[in-house]
Amino acid sequence: MIFMTGPFTGTLVPCSGKLAISTKSPASGTILDCSIGGHFAGELKYAGYDAVIVEGKAKEPVYLWIENDRVEIRSADEVWGKGTHETEFSLKNSHGLDVKVLAIGPAGENMVSMACISSELYRQAGRGGVGAVMGSKNLKAIVVRGTGGVAVANHKELCTKAKEFLKNDALTDDNLWAYTDGTPMIVELSHSSGILPTRNFQQGTFAEFKNISADAVKGVRKDKKGCLSCGLGCGNYVEVGQITVEGPEYETLAIGGSNCGISDLEAIVEFNKICDDLGLDTISVGNTIAFAMEMTEKGIKDFNLRFGDVEEYLRVTEEISNNQSDLALGVKALAEKYGGNDFAMQVKGLEFPGYEPRGAWGMGLAYATSDRGACHMRAWPVADEAYGDMDPFTIAGKAEMVIGLQHYNAAKFSTILCDFWALSLETAAELLTLTTGKQYTAQDLEVIGERIVNLARLFNAREGFAAKDDKLPRRIYNEALKTGATAGKRLPEVEFNRMLREYYQLRGWDNTGKPIADKINQLGI
Amino acid sequence: MIFMTGPFTGTLVPCSGKLAISTKSPASGTILDCSIGGHFAGELKYAGYDAVIVEGKAKEPVYLWIENDRVEIRSADEVWGKGTHETEFSLKNSHGLDVKVLAIGPAGENMVSMACISSELYRQAGRGGVGAVMGSKNLKAIVVRGTGGVAVANHKELCTKAKEFLKNDALTDDNLWAYTDGTPMIVELSHSSGILPTRNFQQGTFAEFKNISADAVKGVRKDKKGCLSCGLGCGNYVEVGQITVEGPEYETLAIGGSNCGISDLEAIVEFNKICDDLGLDTISVGNTIAFAMEMTEKGIKDFNLRFGDVEEYLRVTEEISNNQSDLALGVKALAEKYGGNDFAMQVKGLEFPGYEPRGAWGMGLAYATSDRGACHMRAWPVADEAYGDMDPFTIAGKAEMVIGLQHYNAAKFSTILCDFWALSLETAAELLTLTTGKQYTAQDLEVIGERIVNLARLFNAREGFAAKDDKLPRRIYNEALKTGATAGKRLPEVEFNRMLREYYQLRGWDNTGKPIADKINQLGI
Repeated sequence: MIFMTGPFTGTLVPCSGKLAISTKSPASGTILDCSIGGHFAGELKYAGYDAVIVEGKAKEPVYLWIENDRVEIRSADEVWGKGTHETEFSLKNSHGLDVKVLAIGPAGENMVSMACISSELYRQAGRGGVGAVMGSKNLKAIVVRGTGGVAVANHKELCTKAKEFLKNDALTDDNLWAYTDGTPMIVELSHSSGILPTRNFQQGTFAEFKNISADAVKGVRKDKKGCLSCGLGCGNYVEVGQITVEGPEYETLAIGGSNCGISDLEAIVEFNKICDDLGLDTISVGNTIAFAMEMTEKGIKDFNLRFGDVEEYLRVTEEISNNQSDLALGVKALAEKYGGNDFAMQVKGLEFPGYEPRGAWGMGLAYATSDRGACHMRAWPVADEAYGDMDPFTIAGKAEMVIGLQHYNAAKFSTILCDFWALSLETAAELLTLTTGKQYTAQDLEVIGERIVNLARLFNAREGFAAKDDKLPRRIYNEALKTGATAGKRLPEVEFNRMLREYYQLRGWDNTGKPIADKINQLGI
Repeated sequence: MIFMTGPFTGTLVPCSGKLAISTKSPASGTILDCSIGGHFAGELKYAGYDAVIVEGKAKEPVYLWIENDRVEIRSADEVWGKGTHETEFSLKNSHGLDVKVLAIGPAGENMVSMACISSELYRQAGRGGVGAVMGSKNLKAIVVRGTGGVAVANHKELCTKAKEFLKNDALTDDNLWAYTDGTPMIVELSHSSGILPTRNFQQGTFAEFKNISADAVKGVRKDKKGCLSCGLGCGNYVEVGQITVEGPEYETLAIGGSNCGISDLEAIVEFNKICDDLGLDTISVGNTIAFAMEMTEKGIKDFNLRFGDVEEYLRVTEEISNNQSDLALGVKALAEKYGGNDFAMQVKGLEFPGYEPRGAWGMGLAYATSDRGACHMRAWPVADEAYGDMDPFTIAGKAEMVIGLQHYNAAKFSTILCDFWALSLETAAELLTLTTGKQYTAQDLEVIGERIVNLARLFNAREGFAAKDDKLPRRIYNEALKTGATAGKRLPEVEFNRMLREYYQLRGWDNTGKPIADKINQLGI
């Protein structure tokens, strides 16, 4: 399990506050990487480390205490069993207010496959079960304090360029939404383009979408927050009733809201806080609850969960973290146990994020081919399809677009920059050159991106994944949506398969979805 | 009870991070003001407030939640009974990591007269029982979040001047000790000049002083910390065993260390943390324990406490916070109950800080005439006497010096700047003019300082205080010290009284220590 900073971490390069966490996913069995914002990554770098690699398993619960040159494995007896919030506070009480903390909650300790890692209460490495991997190692937390600095190759010019890029390239009108609204602005976009997951993806619109929209969130917003080095500040602190949370982000509003038939913003905020504290990924949990709601509705299995039932929705979340409910299995294993496979909204064991692929066919391809299962971070074609000018209901040009986005994101995320800076690879190359002293071009990064995608594919092939796993739940192929801009729309399997084949061909992969020798050689793998 | 920011709070004027808290002291019955560092004051200002005035008493335990324009009184049920650390974390969990918190611990709730107010775990408004006043109002905490700014009269020139003063006037070689050592550097100074309180002021030197010196503290130091706007960064984070604390400061090392016969740094660090968490002033608690140790030693009353007994020393501290021990009375009331008045080291009910007046006669006058009882913040003549070039063992020039220092400090602290910037009144006046837009001169500030001292004196006179209360414990008059630079020294009562009379005369006060009408008129009171 690798906790990785990037070449820009700890510098003033905009949006470089992330930490990447790489491991094998307990949710999907694929390769997994996941990122977390806040201030941990910078602190780790200031302590003198590019990465922390954790091998093996401790006999008893422990945490890692890193203070500059000193690294200690300490007993976690006092915090084991506690939520991430109490854990973080307790560790700050032990080590001083200035330390930064990554921690798992009970969900991670119990190795629930949708367990996340939390930092600063409300920042999460959410997807794929990174928290369960920490739990499997009896590693409750990593605490770091660093008082050093970061050396870069060309300090003066990097400062000048970073400021210039911040002003002209990051803090652009196009990016202003991050500060003014944050991700909740996507709710209305998704609803009006018919791709807002509603009632376990039975619909793409939500009659009560206004209750969970950016305006609703802004109505209870109290504050803004950003990560280290960020000029955008996308985080919203909200307060509803007596509950304060940094969030909810779009994914939580969509998957924990409309997708569970829930329009009560206070309930979603509480769900958000419970998940953050217990250490659960809101996307996977929301999907699992929504799936159980539909299973109950259809009479396949009674989970005592109904769409819109706030009380049960909040109760079961706690049960999941304690592994006291079947729902802790996640959507895929739950469907294997009780049925409902056709509407089990997951790919390779990872639950769908908040974008309906029937209203953005390229998004369907992105879900099917992402290395870690149904994921919106490897490629996000909805921006061009559902929200943009590209026809969402065609496969024309989608394979090429998804490939381009996958390379771009792989390259960008390998520099460990935040998703929300739509920087060009030219800019990234220029910053890399100034930071590392090695010459990079946009072309280099394009190749790096492609190499990453292929390497991940080879990793997954070794684990037994192949074309058979690059597929969507049958609901997407067979059931037409009924409302809004996507009424009457499905993504027919034949179209999907055609798009997938084109994707393989363009990638230089064979019909089983495996990179051919020429491609592997060409990329120098 | 008034929580007050200053004209510089929230600006980049160096060392302006303090908050002043004014009330009537439950320890002494005098007027009381007390200051606390950290980031609370700036946050309050950014929320739009110069001050918070709390009147009356809540029926049930409450806390105050201030978020910009919104002010709410909320139930403190969840945090009542908790230590300040858990309270602060719990309130951050409720209101977001960015809020700033002032809180009392069990000591304040139980209205122990040596209860302090804590912020950021390790910052305290320590003296005179401000925590007990909050407790008497059922006010557990104040939580504030402010997202505004601060307007000043002459922004551009203030920035220029503030930076200039920071560089040339605050971050001087003379001030470098704050960063390199912090206040523990005083331990060795005090020991070698024979004024380090040892075993309840029975000695002025401590054989094991090296164990509690700056070098010892630096040996376990892990980090440095400063308040908002501070360029000095005097705070030391230390870690001993498994205990981390920001501290111990000199006062805790002296009064909680040598004065209790304790040279075990780990025990002092633990004492420091317990006091911070339970909400107790280390100076008053340390003195009370030392007094009880001597009472036990002399056979006057057996408190089961011996000089150097670490275990009992830590145990009784917790009892004090819970008001389960007679020691919660403080030195004065304890002496009234059981005797030992001659070596009850307090003035007007406030226990001595860490400077032996037999080795700095002016310090004796400062203790006796300070408006809040034995205090080192109203005037600190030891700098010139024990640590400087002035003869410590004479009264010549001391009254005049103490008066000058009292005016200077009253003026400086009324602008709510930190003690550790030895700025001139000229500098203060220049900054005040740029900040407020009103013209100030050093002479104005001198008069303001004198007016404050006289006004406080009139307040105390109204409460029944007079010349009879301006006195020192008889040990100072009668017992000669036996070791080091102060061997053979006492401060004879006749000398003390002569110095006090001169002080009254120079001040324009009558023989009862009351300002005469001419003085009151002259100051425009």
